[in-house]
Amino acid sequence: MPQFISPLEYSESFAVRTYEIDHCKRATIPALIRLMQEAAMQNVIQLGVSIWDLEAQNISWVLLRKSMQVFRLPGLGERIRVSTCPTGFDRRFTYRDYKIFGADEELLIQSSSAWLLMDTITRRMAPIPGFILDFEAKMPAPEKCLPRPEFRFPKFEQANFTKAFEVNWHDLDFNLHLNNTLYIQWMLEAMPPDMLQEKRVAGMEVLYRAESRWNDVLYTETQMLDEHTYLHRLMKKGEEKELAMALSRWE
Amino acid sequence: MPQFISPLEYSESFAVRTYEIDHCKRATIPALIRLMQEAAMQNVIQLGVSIWDLEAQNISWVLLRKSMQVFRLPGLGERIRVSTCPTGFDRRFTYRDYKIFGADEELLIQSSSAWLLMDTITRRMAPIPGFILDFEAKMPAPEKCLPRPEFRFPKFEQANFTKAFEVNWHDLDFNLHLNNTLYIQWMLEAMPPDMLQEKRVAGMEVLYRAESRWNDVLYTETQMLDEHTYLHRLMKKGEEKELAMALSRWE
Repeated sequence: MPQFISPLEYSESFAVRTYEIDHCKRATIPALIRLMQEAAMQNVIQLGVSIWDLEAQNISWVLLRKSMQVFRLPGLGERIRVSTCPTGFDRRFTYRDYKIFGADEELLIQSSSAWLLMDTITRRMAPIPGFILDFEAKMPAPEKCLPRPEFRFPKFEQANFTKAFEVNWHDLDFNLHLNNTLYIQWMLEAMPPDMLQEKRVAGMEVLYRAESRWNDVLYTETQMLDEHTYLHRLMKKGEEKELAMALSRWE
Repeated sequence: MPQFISPLEYSESFAVRTYEIDHCKRATIPALIRLMQEAAMQNVIQLGVSIWDLEAQNISWVLLRKSMQVFRLPGLGERIRVSTCPTGFDRRFTYRDYKIFGADEELLIQSSSAWLLMDTITRRMAPIPGFILDFEAKMPAPEKCLPRPEFRFPKFEQANFTKAFEVNWHDLDFNLHLNNTLYIQWMLEAMPPDMLQEKRVAGMEVLYRAESRWNDVLYTETQMLDEHTYLHRLMKKGEEKELAMALSRWE
């Protein structure tokens, strides 16, 4: 039986769908990130702190960092349980963990993330309001939480692989920003073809730096650090501005 | 209570997810097409005639035509029931209907489609094998089926809107072809911005003509026929070959 780490935890079961799999009938990384994101959205809707609940106060959640370890990719039709829970605050950020389980509580994926609240008028960081700080008492014990997503990337030095993208209408989320999941999907496109076909992501750290909007022209660049490790960045053309960086490990 | 039109019918309930909605919190057309496609895949898996069941016989399903009427787009969290059923054969094609229902059996979307079986070695049309023809007796009565997707398009004369695409790794389905749903999504991208933001698709006819593979460079062109009606085509660059055509009606 699932052990909940906090009364704030949310858990939902999914069966891996045919549009979520690759040519090996395994769920893709973007599909699994979408399910983690979906569980988190349902969790904040349930807790009354979704982006729609916060609209009236002119604040909104912004994803900053995500760290992810992938132990096994579930297959077509496999029943998985996606669990997510807020895991605390510090002065500036709020944190959230995700776990994906297979049958018999086999841990398939774990991920921690950091978020901030943005004032949607000034576009600057907003203080965490009292009704969110009130969740403090119900947060899981620190030893039940994953390590927070603290990481540094090596300097990006050269693009060994690159891909170009335009932000289209159907790439936007309900907030009219480029979907979080597509940041990762597009960074993973600029990879050696045989890695995409024959290997899989074993772990990833992602740093989100700026939002992107309809009709933006973007490109992703990847630097090979070693045979198993790649450094990625998502750039906005013209401004040569970094929208995101990531490091991926493959096996 | 749902009325099944045939023992071959398959029905599955879904709640509209946060990644399936637009800025008005309504399910998008590509998201709804993915759910119809998913129900059809589960239906053929259940009937033992999925692409994986047919692999050993070197035959595979190819979608040729889809006709769709959209009465209302379901909203975030709304429970919908997606129902699909094979609806018969003729000399060359097999047919399948889809319906999406809201609460109280409100019909939200209906769609009919035509398919053929392709010999995966010769790449030509294959005869329908006996074990599929055996389903004949269980097909729904003709008066329970939607009109078959028979339509002709006006000649494409000029591109008023255009968009370019590259077929990336995550755009492929389990068969390593460009996902059926993205044909439609990409044709809908080449539209006047205010139509995408303020209107919705009320109906669509789609003709699939050729498959597309990894790294293909494509573009879509749209001709405005009148304020509510648009003609689309998806083209392969270089060969100037038509991969698909569609007609969309908006309201």
